[in-house]
Amino acid sequence: MLDFIGTIAFAISGIRLASAKHFDLFGAYVVGVTTAVGGGTMRDLMLGTSPFWMTDPVYLICSGIALVWVMIFGKYLIRQNNTWFLFDTIGLAVFTVTGIERTVAAGFPFWTAIIMGTITGAAGGVFRDVFINEEPLIFRKEIYAMACVIGGLFYYACARLGTDNITAGIVCGAMVVAMRLLAVKYKLRLPILKGEEAQQ
Amino acid sequence: MLDFIGTIAFAISGIRLASAKHFDLFGAYVVGVTTAVGGGTMRDLMLGTSPFWMTDPVYLICSGIALVWVMIFGKYLIRQNNTWFLFDTIGLAVFTVTGIERTVAAGFPFWTAIIMGTITGAAGGVFRDVFINEEPLIFRKEIYAMACVIGGLFYYACARLGTDNITAGIVCGAMVVAMRLLAVKYKLRLPILKGEEAQQ
Amino acid sequence: MLDFIGTIAFAISGIRLASAKHFDLFGAYVVGVTTAVGGGTMRDLMLGTSPFWMTDPVYLICSGIALVWVMIFGKYLIRQNNTWFLFDTIGLAVFTVTGIERTVAAGFPFWTAIIMGTITGAAGGVFRDVFINEEPLIFRKEIYAMACVIGGLFYYACARLGTDNITAGIVCGAMVVAMRLLAVKYKLRLPILKGEEAQQ
Repeated sequence: MLDFIGTIAFAISGIRLASAKHFDLFGAYVVGVTTAVGGGTMRDLMLGTSPFWMTDPVYLICSGIALVWVMIFGKYLIRQNNTWFLFDTIGLAVFTVTGIERTVAAGFPFWTAIIMGTITGAAGGVFRDVFINEEPLIFRKEIYAMACVIGGLFYYACARLGTDNITAGIVCGAMVVAMRLLAVKYKLRLPILKGEEAQQ
Repeated sequence: MLDFIGTIAFAISGIRLASAKHFDLFGAYVVGVTTAVGGGTMRDLMLGTSPFWMTDPVYLICSGIALVWVMIFGKYLIRQNNTWFLFDTIGLAVFTVTGIERTVAAGFPFWTAIIMGTITGAAGGVFRDVFINEEPLIFRKEIYAMACVIGGLFYYACARLGTDNITAGIVCGAMVVAMRLLAVKYKLRLPILKGEEAQQ
Repeated sequence: MLDFIGTIAFAISGIRLASAKHFDLFGAYVVGVTTAVGGGTMRDLMLGTSPFWMTDPVYLICSGIALVWVMIFGKYLIRQNNTWFLFDTIGLAVFTVTGIERTVAAGFPFWTAIIMGTITGAAGGVFRDVFINEEPLIFRKEIYAMACVIGGLFYYACARLGTDNITAGIVCGAMVVAMRLLAVKYKLRLPILKGEEAQQ
């Protein structure tokens, strides 16, 4: 259930950015789907299985709902910003937990699972930004993927302390949500590397 | 045979766009190959098999022929635009049918097969546009991927009506060609989402 | 050992370009990792195995060393340009040999192995350039991927002449290094396709 809300929220973020670039309906839908399922697709390919959405249409249907939602509400979406930000954060948390659990179940070590959790949560947004031809947002602004990493470390701590999966998942998800809300509230950012000028 | 014509036509579209960006011969060839085999590569990875071109060099050879063709004809290619547009459309149709049939053969449901057919036909062009650092053309202009989707629905209808694979493939391919020709002739486009301004 | 030096050098090239674009620490690290392991990841996915770095943390640790190195030396990295250029070239050679050997071991024909060697060496830099939203450097400037192809042809020649793998690998790697050094010293470039103007 939280899974579907997260999928819709992720898809909406893709569709809004695509519409700001004047993509057509098909393009906006593809960018929405990619934002929603891109991270999990990359995880599944790396784990050696076919992408999860290929056997269950619900994720593409959620993205379709997101498209209709954006078409209906259009400019009024801005008023819903706080709501969708919350749903997007819930999605980030759920996807992180899913990614961790599937990777552990596939027999990989825990540090790999944390990376896969982060990829599941954050890679969809990177693909979105590549498609709309922008530098990926999560590489420049916002604590986003770091929230997944920290949540993953808490999952690991729970597992080491011997809690069951459900508890570990809840703690991990709550930490992801908390980290992201705190980061936005206090405008936390990672330091920016003092760069030389462009090398090329 | 139609397969090879389609591969050459796809590669030529990639090489032309790469040359407009002043890529060198190697870069142009890579963009050409990616346009030609990128969609099928993505399909094969998602189906869990190694990309089709890794065991049969003919697709890379077709891309090489495309490179030589562009080098020889250079600016005169514009006069051949209608011919290459037709071959490109034939390629789109053939790739869509191939994608559908391989996905069904791998045991996935039909809606997944239609998506895989569309990816086989259209994803190569998306990779091409990412490489040349443009917003993907099919997300903004032209009925292109939608022709694959509609062709796929006709394939499904044929399958439900009990026709053999060859008939279904021909009907599907003919619909893809017809849709694209009609779309270009009547300048059909999908509506553009009324966007808010950029969100970032 | 050469493997690790190459990984660090590749990661540094990614991190420097990311810092020139004002990416934050996380973004710079991800771009560094992608540059270092992106080529091998693509190879492994195409060969049908999970990416090599998922079971051995050393590659991510090398990327972390690269990040610390860039943070410490900052602007003084320019003075180390020749050193890192050499290490980068050694990495290119090592990655090419690894890619060829794994592909042959997986039972693919030799021409596929040469392509996979080239992808292992050069694709990471393409992903880097997609992430920082630039046209891939290797498509426009420098003999880089062609050095991998030529090294691969020498590997094949050695194999046909009946040498053992170690000799073939050394010859291949030496050729990659030689080709790249020569290309830079004499400013060799591939010809640029005389393009029409943009087609879109």
